[in-house]
Amino acid sequence: MSRFFSDRARGMKASDIRELLELTQRPEIISLAGGLPNTKAFPAEQIAEICTDILKNDSHKALQYSATEGIRPLRQALVDYMKRSFHVDGEVDNLIVTTGSQQALSLISMGLLDPNDIVLTTAPSYVGGIGAFRAFQARIDTVAQDDEGLVIESLSEKLSTMKANFKKPKLIYVVPTFQNPAGVTMNEKRREEMLELAIDYDVLILEDDPYSRLRFEGEEVKPVKYFDYEGRVIFLGTMSKLLSPGLRVAWMLSPKDLSRKFAIAKQSADLCSTTFSQHIAYEFINRGYLEPHIEKVKAMYMRKKDIMLKAMDEHFPEGLTWTKPEGGMFTWVTMPEHMDSKLILMRAIKEDHVAFVIGSAFYPDGSGKNHMRLNFSHSSDEKLEEGIKRLGATLKKEMV
Amino acid sequence: MSRFFSDRARGMKASDIRELLELTQRPEIISLAGGLPNTKAFPAEQIAEICTDILKNDSHKALQYSATEGIRPLRQALVDYMKRSFHVDGEVDNLIVTTGSQQALSLISMGLLDPNDIVLTTAPSYVGGIGAFRAFQARIDTVAQDDEGLVIESLSEKLSTMKANFKKPKLIYVVPTFQNPAGVTMNEKRREEMLELAIDYDVLILEDDPYSRLRFEGEEVKPVKYFDYEGRVIFLGTMSKLLSPGLRVAWMLSPKDLSRKFAIAKQSADLCSTTFSQHIAYEFINRGYLEPHIEKVKAMYMRKKDIMLKAMDEHFPEGLTWTKPEGGMFTWVTMPEHMDSKLILMRAIKEDHVAFVIGSAFYPDGSGKNHMRLNFSHSSDEKLEEGIKRLGATLKKEMV
Repeated sequence: MSRFFSDRARGMKASDIRELLELTQRPEIISLAGGLPNTKAFPAEQIAEICTDILKNDSHKALQYSATEGIRPLRQALVDYMKRSFHVDGEVDNLIVTTGSQQALSLISMGLLDPNDIVLTTAPSYVGGIGAFRAFQARIDTVAQDDEGLVIESLSEKLSTMKANFKKPKLIYVVPTFQNPAGVTMNEKRREEMLELAIDYDVLILEDDPYSRLRFEGEEVKPVKYFDYEGRVIFLGTMSKLLSPGLRVAWMLSPKDLSRKFAIAKQSADLCSTTFSQHIAYEFINRGYLEPHIEKVKAMYMRKKDIMLKAMDEHFPEGLTWTKPEGGMFTWVTMPEHMDSKLILMRAIKEDHVAFVIGSAFYPDGSGKNHMRLNFSHSSDEKLEEGIKRLGATLKKEMV
Repeated sequence: MSRFFSDRARGMKASDIRELLELTQRPEIISLAGGLPNTKAFPAEQIAEICTDILKNDSHKALQYSATEGIRPLRQALVDYMKRSFHVDGEVDNLIVTTGSQQALSLISMGLLDPNDIVLTTAPSYVGGIGAFRAFQARIDTVAQDDEGLVIESLSEKLSTMKANFKKPKLIYVVPTFQNPAGVTMNEKRREEMLELAIDYDVLILEDDPYSRLRFEGEEVKPVKYFDYEGRVIFLGTMSKLLSPGLRVAWMLSPKDLSRKFAIAKQSADLCSTTFSQHIAYEFINRGYLEPHIEKVKAMYMRKKDIMLKAMDEHFPEGLTWTKPEGGMFTWVTMPEHMDSKLILMRAIKEDHVAFVIGSAFYPDGSGKNHMRLNFSHSSDEKLEEGIKRLGATLKKEMV
């Protein structure tokens, strides 16, 4: 059958992460691998109340096809939310509801990327972004990241070298707040400097922000989009980590000429996102449930983060370091250079029944072997502590 | 901003249909244009009951991310349904749940079509299919269609001519039962002959079947997939016209090597379809609600079809012909060659406050001007009759 594949499809491979996640599904394994919200953080009762009301009063709208760009009340509510919570002025016409942020990544790739176009991102970076760009045959190039996110000097140097070779990227892709996988956040100075470089070199910025509302500690940092006086930042927001990923409600706020193209791309991609989910998300915001709910989720995840970091202090051997996230869902462990997290993962699963994601999954060039991503949002408090204890045991054996 | 567009995006245009549909939204207009199910055909009470149960017992699953290919119980239920209602033996591993059939069309394009690859379809054909293929820069070529669907001689001649020029299509795309837009159905003999030609010329067949369960009259016709002894037919089914389009639950059943690639493509496209919708659709089937519900919808649409055809007999001028659909949602009107449905539509909207879709929207080459597509599923009985009366008035003025 491979004779029928497109060139694009020939290059598509299932992600490492995906294959490994299957191993972690066995019941005896404590998984710190997935990037899943905690199921106890789903407001099932409020959603049930909303569903009952929608199906009683608005089923003729909520069960029907809807506009490709999303239902108008939700788009308006999200524009208001962007203003309130992100200090970003957007227009309804430039906001498109998407089937998760993953669809936004795919539509942007569809609309902007020709084969061999270059996307610059940090090393490490979010696998779903890399996957979407690669599905459209883009090449991924990377710049350095440290504990404060993308390193400006590295970006500046990369852009300058590319220019000297008559090249430039189409996009700079960043998850600037509580990054997946590293949990780090770019400060505002870096955000402004990145934007200035994007302007100088005429590159678009794609800001993927699933986590910033999940800040437990520290000072709020304004999104890159806030500083976007010129209109070259595409902002991705989502309800997946705040309300429920299973509803698949996310959005993109783009410069005007781009949003029109993305809407046409979306028309060919799925006609419209689930109308029913959009009504649920709208009502959840409209009834004032979102902000109190976010507070609950933050309290839960902060507690879990503290449990994990404390257990890591206690059970992990000397010689490792890890990020201290002020929000989000992940911490990122750095081991001595010679250590290979893939081998450690095999041992952790087999001998100690615990799993994580290997660092190299997040490096487009497959490097980063001495890193691990640990998730603290999904597991119960007890399993978190036990999982870290088990992983500590594996690591101690490895470091002998 | 257009300097950032991909080549692909430069070629993407909003469909004619879409622009025209906006005109038809005004309250004074009776629209026979859209392809929407009737909102009274949505089983809101049963869905409300199901939502309550799911959110009480299974919210931890229904609101969470789910497998890219779809939740297992739904995939199994759809395989069983394919066996029961379509006489097709499928395997769960080859069935992928999609965000509407539109997403399946897009994933197939992504997986199979390189720029300038050829897709063969009938003239007329479904706009959403054409849009998806074009979004991936395929070229569309057409074969003739008559009152029994795709004309085999035309297909045979086309394939032979292409072969003489060292070309061949990747796909033959058909909506073989109650076609959108023409309402016509291919008989089984033609289906088998089409399949034999596909085998001879080594081409895949894409069978898009949203309507076959909505048969009011006549003999059931087996899907092309039923005859697919070799494994070269991709079958698309959907709950959109049976249960609710706003849930966005559809599926594709593909030959094995293809489904693996399509799943990887879907991973980059939206990670997974709405989990909550999938649970609803599964429960709707599992509780035995689907078949009795389909009977209700069929009775409603048959009544509406009869009302429309009777009103057309009464109010349309001499010299027009139209298809007599045995199911589905559309009839297709053929006017004398010199008539232009776009001009007629403008007049119908302006003077008589009624709308339809122009035939040329369904012809990849923009021909078919002397056709109109009329939808009978969406309007109330009264508006259907009044709409046809109004359209008859426009047509009489045009034919003077």
